[in-house]
Amino acid sequence: MQLQVAIDRLTLTDATALAQQLDGKTDIIEMGTSLVKDYGYQGIVAMRTAIQHSQLLVDLKTIDEGAYEFRQGFKAGADILTVMGAASEATLAAVYAVTQETGKTMMIDLMETSIEKQRQIAGFPQAIYCLHHSTDRQDKMAPDSTVAAFHEQFPDLAHLAIAGGIDQTGAAALTAQKLTDIVIVGSAITKSADPVAAAEEMMEVVHK
Amino acid sequence: MQLQVAIDRLTLTDATALAQQLDGKTDIIEMGTSLVKDYGYQGIVAMRTAIQHSQLLVDLKTIDEGAYEFRQGFKAGADILTVMGAASEATLAAVYAVTQETGKTMMIDLMETSIEKQRQIAGFPQAIYCLHHSTDRQDKMAPDSTVAAFHEQFPDLAHLAIAGGIDQTGAAALTAQKLTDIVIVGSAITKSADPVAAAEEMMEVVHK
Repeated sequence: MQLQVAIDRLTLTDATALAQQLDGKTDIIEMGTSLVKDYGYQGIVAMRTAIQHSQLLVDLKTIDEGAYEFRQGFKAGADILTVMGAASEATLAAVYAVTQETGKTMMIDLMETSIEKQRQIAGFPQAIYCLHHSTDRQDKMAPDSTVAAFHEQFPDLAHLAIAGGIDQTGAAALTAQKLTDIVIVGSAITKSADPVAAAEEMMEVVHK
Repeated sequence: MQLQVAIDRLTLTDATALAQQLDGKTDIIEMGTSLVKDYGYQGIVAMRTAIQHSQLLVDLKTIDEGAYEFRQGFKAGADILTVMGAASEATLAAVYAVTQETGKTMMIDLMETSIEKQRQIAGFPQAIYCLHHSTDRQDKMAPDSTVAAFHEQFPDLAHLAIAGGIDQTGAAALTAQKLTDIVIVGSAITKSADPVAAAEEMMEVVHK
């Protein structure tokens, strides 16, 4: 399993400083949507410049104009970009084509998608499917149960990720379960007193 | 009915120049999602500075972290912000609370939402509900038929808008129908040889 640390709601100066500290200490560094909407294309370039060893995922949350947004995001330096599962099938097909053409990766954010919609969009074998609990929701999920339920419905999808309030206990359960490729952690690492130490501890849990 | 002209996929210099030309020649100027993701918060500030007479709608397409994105968007100068109908009910409630607190307006983009989801999110009386055909889709819609079908399902929703490939013929049918508050036009105006003349012609159709 890989660890993705999400950086969000900081000034670009603080975000790039934190990215430099975490570079190589986590598999993937995520530039959160708030940073994209606050700082735009030049913000992505700045994050790319700060990161030499980890992969850079940019949480674009594309929902329309797929080819345009994905070309821009990869041009700015992202390795992985996100698209909403709630987008039209045409948008998903458009961004998938861009990833195939550029040799890059897409993550499909399944937040608030119905099982019917998930069935419609299950045909992108090289995409990462991300189970995602909206941060605006107050209810919690048990990550390994969520993954088990999804895997039962979609046993053929090879690449799964999960995000939303995951701590070390949740991550340990996912590691033991061996169904998830990427676990995404935000404030449990970035808001801790020592984010680098928290990332290193989580990396041990995730790579056990 | 009001006219909203959507500006998208330009450099910020060209976008603000076009916004200055269209200022006061259309009811609402939309800063498209591509400009938000390319230029961020400072891009919104630049568009606000360029516009004195029309309202500024920023197509944020918020789908999570609703309160944060809406506070930022209004602080940067937007009069109206968009949220995806595909977002969680918690996100929609969060952004609605921000609009009520700030006296600003939200537009709910219904792109790719099912009738069930539309029923769940029909409880925001002061929001504008926007029927929206994804630009990535190749099939076309007849705008007045789309509005009629939606109005039959949701007769109590007072504020409707519609977007997606609308030309003068479509706009004239919507004006005659008297069910729509805002018609959103993009490339039919911005990609024409004379965008100001095209906006003025469309304003006559829309305000008939």
